[in-house]
Amino acid sequence: DRAETQGGLKIISDDENLHAELGGIIHFDGYIFDKDDNFFSELDEDFFLIRGFEEPVNTTEFRTVRLIMRGRLWKWEYKLERDFAIPGVGGLLDVYLTTEIHNGKFITGNYKPSRSIGELIGQNDITMMERPFASDGIYFGRVRQQGMGWHTHWCCHTFGIDLFNLRSPGNPPNSGIGAATRFTWAPINDEFSTLHLGASLSYENPNKRTLPREALVEYSGRRGPRQLIALSPGGSDFFFGAFGDEEFYLGSPEGKVHFIGLELAGTHGPFYLQSEYAFGNFSGDFFLSELTFENFFGAPPDFFCDPFFGCFIGDQDVRTWYVMGSWAVTGEHKAYDKRKGVFKAIKPIPPETALEVTARYQSIENRDIPSMKASNFVFGFNYYFNPKVRLMFNVTLGDNSFNGDQTKQFAVRMQAFW
Amino acid sequence: DRAETQGGLKIISDDENLHAELGGIIHFDGYIFDKDDNFFSELDEDFFLIRGFEEPVNTTEFRTVRLIMRGRLWKWEYKLERDFAIPGVGGLLDVYLTTEIHNGKFITGNYKPSRSIGELIGQNDITMMERPFASDGIYFGRVRQQGMGWHTHWCCHTFGIDLFNLRSPGNPPNSGIGAATRFTWAPINDEFSTLHLGASLSYENPNKRTLPREALVEYSGRRGPRQLIALSPGGSDFFFGAFGDEEFYLGSPEGKVHFIGLELAGTHGPFYLQSEYAFGNFSGDFFLSELTFENFFGAPPDFFCDPFFGCFIGDQDVRTWYVMGSWAVTGEHKAYDKRKGVFKAIKPIPPETALEVTARYQSIENRDIPSMKASNFVFGFNYYFNPKVRLMFNVTLGDNSFNGDQTKQFAVRMQAFW
Amino acid sequence: DRAETQGGLKIISDDENLHAELGGIIHFDGYIFDKDDNFFSELDEDFFLIRGFEEPVNTTEFRTVRLIMRGRLWKWEYKLERDFAIPGVGGLLDVYLTTEIHNGKFITGNYKPSRSIGELIGQNDITMMERPFASDGIYFGRVRQQGMGWHTHWCCHTFGIDLFNLRSPGNPPNSGIGAATRFTWAPINDEFSTLHLGASLSYENPNKRTLPREALVEYSGRRGPRQLIALSPGGSDFFFGAFGDEEFYLGSPEGKVHFIGLELAGTHGPFYLQSEYAFGNFSGDFFLSELTFENFFGAPPDFFCDPFFGCFIGDQDVRTWYVMGSWAVTGEHKAYDKRKGVFKAIKPIPPETALEVTARYQSIENRDIPSMKASNFVFGFNYYFNPKVRLMFNVTLGDNSFNGDQTKQFAVRMQAFW
Repeated sequence: DRAETQGGLKIISDDENLHAELGGIIHFDGYIFDKDDNFFSELDEDFFLIRGFEEPVNTTEFRTVRLIMRGRLWKWEYKLERDFAIPGVGGLLDVYLTTEIHNGKFITGNYKPSRSIGELIGQNDITMMERPFASDGIYFGRVRQQGMGWHTHWCCHTFGIDLFNLRSPGNPPNSGIGAATRFTWAPINDEFSTLHLGASLSYENPNKRTLPREALVEYSGRRGPRQLIALSPGGSDFFFGAFGDEEFYLGSPEGKVHFIGLELAGTHGPFYLQSEYAFGNFSGDFFLSELTFENFFGAPPDFFCDPFFGCFIGDQDVRTWYVMGSWAVTGEHKAYDKRKGVFKAIKPIPPETALEVTARYQSIENRDIPSMKASNFVFGFNYYFNPKVRLMFNVTLGDNSFNGDQTKQFAVRMQAFW
Repeated sequence: DRAETQGGLKIISDDENLHAELGGIIHFDGYIFDKDDNFFSELDEDFFLIRGFEEPVNTTEFRTVRLIMRGRLWKWEYKLERDFAIPGVGGLLDVYLTTEIHNGKFITGNYKPSRSIGELIGQNDITMMERPFASDGIYFGRVRQQGMGWHTHWCCHTFGIDLFNLRSPGNPPNSGIGAATRFTWAPINDEFSTLHLGASLSYENPNKRTLPREALVEYSGRRGPRQLIALSPGGSDFFFGAFGDEEFYLGSPEGKVHFIGLELAGTHGPFYLQSEYAFGNFSGDFFLSELTFENFFGAPPDFFCDPFFGCFIGDQDVRTWYVMGSWAVTGEHKAYDKRKGVFKAIKPIPPETALEVTARYQSIENRDIPSMKASNFVFGFNYYFNPKVRLMFNVTLGDNSFNGDQTKQFAVRMQAFW
Repeated sequence: DRAETQGGLKIISDDENLHAELGGIIHFDGYIFDKDDNFFSELDEDFFLIRGFEEPVNTTEFRTVRLIMRGRLWKWEYKLERDFAIPGVGGLLDVYLTTEIHNGKFITGNYKPSRSIGELIGQNDITMMERPFASDGIYFGRVRQQGMGWHTHWCCHTFGIDLFNLRSPGNPPNSGIGAATRFTWAPINDEFSTLHLGASLSYENPNKRTLPREALVEYSGRRGPRQLIALSPGGSDFFFGAFGDEEFYLGSPEGKVHFIGLELAGTHGPFYLQSEYAFGNFSGDFFLSELTFENFFGAPPDFFCDPFFGCFIGDQDVRTWYVMGSWAVTGEHKAYDKRKGVFKAIKPIPPETALEVTARYQSIENRDIPSMKASNFVFGFNYYFNPKVRLMFNVTLGDNSFNGDQTKQFAVRMQAFW
């Protein structure tokens, strides 16, 4: 049998019915925050105690440390990906089996359903250090789910449909279900230019014991302050307190969530543009005491709350969009994966290196909680030592309209994969 | 050196003194329960609160996600198996070193002692989705232990003996010790038919800080309701309360456990039969308040408990047996591993596939706690896409005589190994 | 591409720009304690309750179960090492990227800074089962840190310098920083004899949320009783209580720690000598109630504590030294790695085996807490079945001058690596 390496280990049987490979990823980050003094100096000690709010800490962190095994067993393929930077069973990421059915790929296991391009682009191919709000902001903690799907492509199109249990590895058993579908069209796709259009639909229907659905963003970058944007309650066991108490959280459990996402992206030589607009709804119908509201959302409500029944939160319309661009100063072009409808990172040919400059503006708002809006502007560069090793640098200018915080972050990443 | 793949990675040195291979397993399950309405509708909210009893939840689950490295270092061999579906150090399964001593294999590390054939059959070779009560029911949480053993085989016999500390990886340090031995005889073993007879003996002698020994079964399938069948207390630090309290658990700590198991199994062309009868004793001599009894065993005692001293539980005779059969509709024959005295799964030759239908009846009872008995009937099929990928389907009809529950389960598994 | 095995998996690309290998380690230990009856029989139940002090338990344990992947990606190399015997993200050990800069190696990630030779010698090359106090005693829980460094060597010298965040994987984010540097000189280094001299300097400057710095030793061997030797408080959130309370811990947070280490080591044929002397300071300036002192240090203070302000602990001078020797009875010689300034284990050439006898005396004291001193004498042997598999046996005679305990330990290890 034949041995190969692209930085990892690979062996292929002579008849090509069997093969296996082992690869990995290391992302090692450093974060320095420029705290918003206006915001933090006003806060008293109680603020931190009551809300569990933490001042951002300058530190280093392994963002991702993965081993990834994949291979072929006759007509089936497997992938087993474990992230050691996440403790416990939750460190299982892509773990699935696939096979060919009707010119498409049947997939079953834990994987990313057919949703936002911002999420589907590979962890080593993303342009900024963190993904947009339109991916792991609105699908916070739910970017991979356990289920099955069918993904196909033809000509300049891709189509995928998925049905899943609202469970990820490491989460408690629950019987919530969800579905997602995505369709993309690349009317232009040649060696120099690509134009990509896409639309996706996601629906989540929680059931007993399903965890709450949240839209949550780290608007000043990873490990910076967080803002809960929208909330659908999970199972009724998450409720607590009684009306009139100082702290309570009561109402109709198991709120549904749905989202529609629209994608527009493209390349033109060394230029890249990627944008999405996603709108949807977190169903509500629950009541929080004012203190509980403040604990959950990090600031007092901007609307009237009944002294006894508390703050009512009904269905919440959430909208988010971003525009991101990059320019490969050294001239490389981002490849388009027409089987998946996603773009890849640029790849210099050793011994050459590459440099790209990057920027993104994004915003997210909950139109049913007054002032609930966060946005940020991120800019930076990526330096590619070779196709597998890059240095990323991002400056994030965060802006939280809800509590007024404008913390900034300087972040650097050393990334290698194999 | 030579590279090979059977779906995993393998490299063998030219002199064959050194080799290494990396493999893996994925078992992805789905469970749907048909709750026993008679049972569950009678229960009030208090029941669930008091007993921590959970209604079964329809869900998906990774049963097993493992990476397995093994190899040879001159006269020694190693195996390192980590299951990522189990959090923490407890995810270490087979981790051992072996070498040849006196025509046998000396083994040291964490592994399955020489006990029930139902336990010793490999995780990818089992006929039903879950093992019989005679393996991980009576040896609940103790199927692997840390120690050393010597395993040999000659002609149509196998013999193994093991001495171990009552500790598994992830469990607290303790100085309990145990021993096990197993002898098998295959009077018939040709290409078409095998007849296998076996007997095993297991003895566990807990000591300070050893965890309690339990016989515990999920009689309606994995993730379904559980029934504690028998209990030997662990170290005295597990006791709580005082006589006369509402809740107490007091008595002589460190109860011993021993079991004798008898095996009868065989193949005849596409037919397979496997059965075991195991009987043994969990030593007791402890007292539970009625409420504590109900918390532990899930229902009130069927016998008299003293208002002050509570329910006395002495030595407990436990018996369990099962009969399991399968028929490979497509004609394949299960191979017999005469070195280990176990059977392997059928293996179709690609591009052919295989189908087998399966059934098992089993029962377990504690003859010293009145009415303490559980049984189930499981039937289903296994469809083999190829020798490494199969789909399993099991229907489990559970029957808990102690609390009257008769929950049913429909379960499906996608399994791949390499 | 070319496949190789030295017991693990390795594949090298034809142009040698890319390669990858997967290896592993298993260390399986057994411990038997000879408790100091004078000490333990005097202790009453309260002692164990109050201080969380545990009697040593005879048990087995996986000391180390690792998978290690390393490789080359053009001019960069990676290493990813996960120890499954440590739960959670803290199981990440060496995880780093390196490249050549100015005749030296630039390294970034999680790794051991340039400090004690007792720490830098590889886990499979150490002479005794446990490292000396001069490594993981004074750098307890801090032997690897996240940062970057530059390591070089020329002629008979090595030099390394490191700058790091006081964080290891699995620890909370914090903004403490540290630096370390080490210089070594081998005036003699031929095939038969090596003389090694070295000096290192380590400085740690904690900051908000940094964990406390501790010098802590298991003076009777692994899993035996522990003695906290010195303590610098971490962030102020670790303080508790108020002056006059029964239990309090108050003062100036974020104490600094620095150490100077001197190394003298060498080989002469089958003989090996390794010794270190390290002295440094844990800055203090904090107050403990007498009960808190006893909880932390395991025995009441030998000095006057104010009834209201408690026991004051200021800056603490800590000194430790050891002398270790080994004799390879079968004549093998320990190789010297002149790139790193460390020694390797002896390696028999199969089918030959090797035996070495070993001994070490070591002592550590805190000169600013009266009677705070612990020492031990360890002797034993290592039997090498082959270059990758060895059996270690150590007898440890512990001596804790602070509380008077003199527990002994008999320990055995089966070790394999590949």
